[in-house]
Amino acid sequence: MLPRKIADSTVRRLAIYLRFLEEFQRQGQATVASDALAQRAGTTSAQVRKDLSFFGSFGTRGLGYDVVPLADRLREILGLGHRHRVAIIGAGRLAAALVDYTGFSARGFEIVAVVDRDPARIGAVLAGLTIEDVADLEHVVRRGEVEIAILVTPAGPAQALVDRLVAVGITAILNFAPVQLQVPEGVDVKNVNLAVELETLSYALSARAAT
Amino acid sequence: MLPRKIADSTVRRLAIYLRFLEEFQRQGQATVASDALAQRAGTTSAQVRKDLSFFGSFGTRGLGYDVVPLADRLREILGLGHRHRVAIIGAGRLAAALVDYTGFSARGFEIVAVVDRDPARIGAVLAGLTIEDVADLEHVVRRGEVEIAILVTPAGPAQALVDRLVAVGITAILNFAPVQLQVPEGVDVKNVNLAVELETLSYALSARAAT
Repeated sequence: MLPRKIADSTVRRLAIYLRFLEEFQRQGQATVASDALAQRAGTTSAQVRKDLSFFGSFGTRGLGYDVVPLADRLREILGLGHRHRVAIIGAGRLAAALVDYTGFSARGFEIVAVVDRDPARIGAVLAGLTIEDVADLEHVVRRGEVEIAILVTPAGPAQALVDRLVAVGITAILNFAPVQLQVPEGVDVKNVNLAVELETLSYALSARAAT
Repeated sequence: MLPRKIADSTVRRLAIYLRFLEEFQRQGQATVASDALAQRAGTTSAQVRKDLSFFGSFGTRGLGYDVVPLADRLREILGLGHRHRVAIIGAGRLAAALVDYTGFSARGFEIVAVVDRDPARIGAVLAGLTIEDVADLEHVVRRGEVEIAILVTPAGPAQALVDRLVAVGITAILNFAPVQLQVPEGVDVKNVNLAVELETLSYALSARAAT
């Protein structure tokens, strides 16, 4: 059973804990202390205990967490027990990098389709996938039983594409387009804005220079 | 003057507000209501008012915020008044996408160098930049007066590269390598983990299926 609603920041930390638990597992460690996990994940052991307490009891006081059952439980919580089928909307350079990104398939995310609107790109092959016409988006999503869409288009066409994705039943979207998407209740959008990440660093540089 | 320390989540929202203020400015709007800004940025008007209250008074009750002075102030807060010189460490497909990403230069981030360790890549040209040998990293950083490093290497060599970057004076790092980097006080690292983003969507799909 899953708790009703966990904060996005907590889910993000669970995904990071899982990475390190799997590393410990490969190294043959049976248990891990919350402070070792905290140090790897860049947080505090109090936060680790609080995050994991949502999902039951995995720790023994003084001994730490049992690596294998905790990793199994986190995979279950994160819905990583089965593979997720992913379509990429937009076939530019970022799409090429994403298709090539081994981290996705290793975590159970399988890219099954890539679409674009540019006739010069349609028909070309990207990591074994033939780029299809975005005009056929609905067909591509249904045929591929796609669950997750990754949007890597310019801002302009993004909202209209998302409306089509939502209409065909997509409820999970990873958005790289620099625009705030409007979606109905029950659809999740995660935004990745690389310029915003650089701007938080720019702020850090300025704030240091000013002190 | 800048406030001493603003939470990362606040800085991130300021960067997003700035995008929409600039859009309003291009459209010739003189003022904007906090709820219009909130709706665009996916937050509440109370949050907008709280975030902006850190930096002085920009609003007139009932009239909203003055677009131009607020945008100017946000650019100043975010340290976007001057250009930042950026080096990319690792010249794979993601580097190719980043070099090509117009959002960076539009926000004042200028990519001045790309390095790699692969002899097959060194000497090749990426968006007008000749890929240089990572062995010369210190020289490249000094010559380019680099302020920000973007790390797009595998996990293995990442920490050793960061140690070298820190030793040569870099204090701001955008990290795409799937590893938690250890850095001394006074150095900022922002992690972008694309698989973690997909896992938060996987969690959302599972949580909905379970209810």
